[in-house]
Amino acid sequence: MGRGRTIPHVITLGELHEARERVAPVLRPTPVEVSESLSGLVRRDVLLKPEHRQRTGSFKIRGAYNFVSRLPAGGEVVAASAGNHAQGVALAAQLSGMRATVFMPTNASKPKVDATRGYGATVRLVGEFYDEAMDAAREYASEHGLVVVPPFDDPLIIAGQGTIGLELVDEAPEAGTVVVPVGGGGLISGVAAGLRLSDHPALIVGVQAEGAAAMQASLAAGHVVTLDTVSTMADGIAPHAVSPLTLEHVQNYVDTIVTVTEDELAKAMLLLLERAKAVVEPAGAAAVAALVAGKVPEGGGAAVAVVSGGNVDLHLLSRLIGA
Amino acid sequence: MGRGRTIPHVITLGELHEARERVAPVLRPTPVEVSESLSGLVRRDVLLKPEHRQRTGSFKIRGAYNFVSRLPAGGEVVAASAGNHAQGVALAAQLSGMRATVFMPTNASKPKVDATRGYGATVRLVGEFYDEAMDAAREYASEHGLVVVPPFDDPLIIAGQGTIGLELVDEAPEAGTVVVPVGGGGLISGVAAGLRLSDHPALIVGVQAEGAAAMQASLAAGHVVTLDTVSTMADGIAPHAVSPLTLEHVQNYVDTIVTVTEDELAKAMLLLLERAKAVVEPAGAAAVAALVAGKVPEGGGAAVAVVSGGNVDLHLLSRLIGA
Repeated sequence: MGRGRTIPHVITLGELHEARERVAPVLRPTPVEVSESLSGLVRRDVLLKPEHRQRTGSFKIRGAYNFVSRLPAGGEVVAASAGNHAQGVALAAQLSGMRATVFMPTNASKPKVDATRGYGATVRLVGEFYDEAMDAAREYASEHGLVVVPPFDDPLIIAGQGTIGLELVDEAPEAGTVVVPVGGGGLISGVAAGLRLSDHPALIVGVQAEGAAAMQASLAAGHVVTLDTVSTMADGIAPHAVSPLTLEHVQNYVDTIVTVTEDELAKAMLLLLERAKAVVEPAGAAAVAALVAGKVPEGGGAAVAVVSGGNVDLHLLSRLIGA
Repeated sequence: MGRGRTIPHVITLGELHEARERVAPVLRPTPVEVSESLSGLVRRDVLLKPEHRQRTGSFKIRGAYNFVSRLPAGGEVVAASAGNHAQGVALAAQLSGMRATVFMPTNASKPKVDATRGYGATVRLVGEFYDEAMDAAREYASEHGLVVVPPFDDPLIIAGQGTIGLELVDEAPEAGTVVVPVGGGGLISGVAAGLRLSDHPALIVGVQAEGAAAMQASLAAGHVVTLDTVSTMADGIAPHAVSPLTLEHVQNYVDTIVTVTEDELAKAMLLLLERAKAVVEPAGAAAVAALVAGKVPEGGGAAVAVVSGGNVDLHLLSRLIGA
């Protein structure tokens, strides 16, 4: 730790349980499911945690609601996102009696923009890339004295995502390995803390897209590394950098981070479509991709793949099917 | 009833409960799920009964297992099918310690043939159409003294499918309408009997493809009518004729049969893909299609759409997305 830097606040079991109590009433239950076809294919028991069927189509509502629902009702929150976080914040605000203004880059897909508006948010399309949308969000928030809901770099967000870890303690006590997609690291930070702090013995494996492996690079360097470029269709896990807070969680609680190629992601998406009848976005397929590619170390017992989201442009699916 | 005709055996509540006990240990649970997006779209509460996630990708395992598991272990069963029934019989036989020989037409899709073989069945590709495959199945069965597992025209098959009706009594006591895809009528016969004999008050609505509405025609005529031609992409609900047994159940227990167009089926499949993250075959989308098209009479309370199966050729999906 450098001088003057705040020590990141690693979340506690108490914060996780408090988050679980808070978010439970607004979640759709997503109990783990055995996938017989994937189990046959990878020759180990595979369980799926189907967060693509969560409200808003991804796990992001968990962290967003844990954060937003603590703010005074009647107010307004701000966020920037090209996708799942936008929908999570929009629904969290709606459920909390608040307004939401969400800044999305102009290249955000129409279904995601429509869905965000569908949850009652005001959408502002600004900038070509996420960073420009985030700059605009910060400026708007500071102008109006509002709070920006961070996508991953926050203990309340991490604790919200970590409710998945607590659920896995109940739903898959026999799991030997838990495999989690990693972008900014909010999801794996929470899941890993939830499992470890509950003394669940599973190996915890993170999966990144080969073309956007900011967490792996940061782990190797021992500090947050910013990637110059990222290149993957898995837009849900493609930030240029993680945060000190999520890196700290991963250093403490995660056993290893592996990467998957675009072909491996595509193959996993098609397998999930054909065999699990599940529409999953590229990021959501990352854990399954790593399992199918044989990149996940054996932990004994079943492997749980967290299927983090299903918000995929159908035209991308169509292209993958045709390829 | 004409002279000399056997009176069809309408199933009893006892047979349904017995079937439920028998099939329960081999089923995957498919509790009904609220679909917020469909509810918003059709302005009534919509629940989905997700049998596309049932083992083998459709409800057919229920009836097949209720039938096959009663035969002496170590033997062999025979069936003819281009799709879901083939997989249901193959898995039912595997689970019952029996061999299965399944006759499939040569145009059966490769994933369905592979899946049937994957459950341990011997597949024989015979004839261009289902009828030729069925003729070959009957001939083979009679030659070897074996039983053909009928796709719908049998009380045990109907009682097996009817376990869905009993589950809905528990899972959706508040439902005002239950909407069920109809081909040969085995599914709706069982579901309707299960609901009515349990005094569930819901309206029961069957849905056929406009180009294959054999049940509707038979109801109107008061006897089984054989269609000269059928034309629909919903291959799971496209027989040329129902049976006296299923017609009798429908006459006794079903409130109405409506039809949907190919466009309405396609629209429902895409909605289920995009909003429910569900891969559903055309027949499986029929109930949702009827709801979205406003063709289902109001019954007060929620509408349950039975999503009967998810075994769709991905190239068909890709074409529908591109259209």
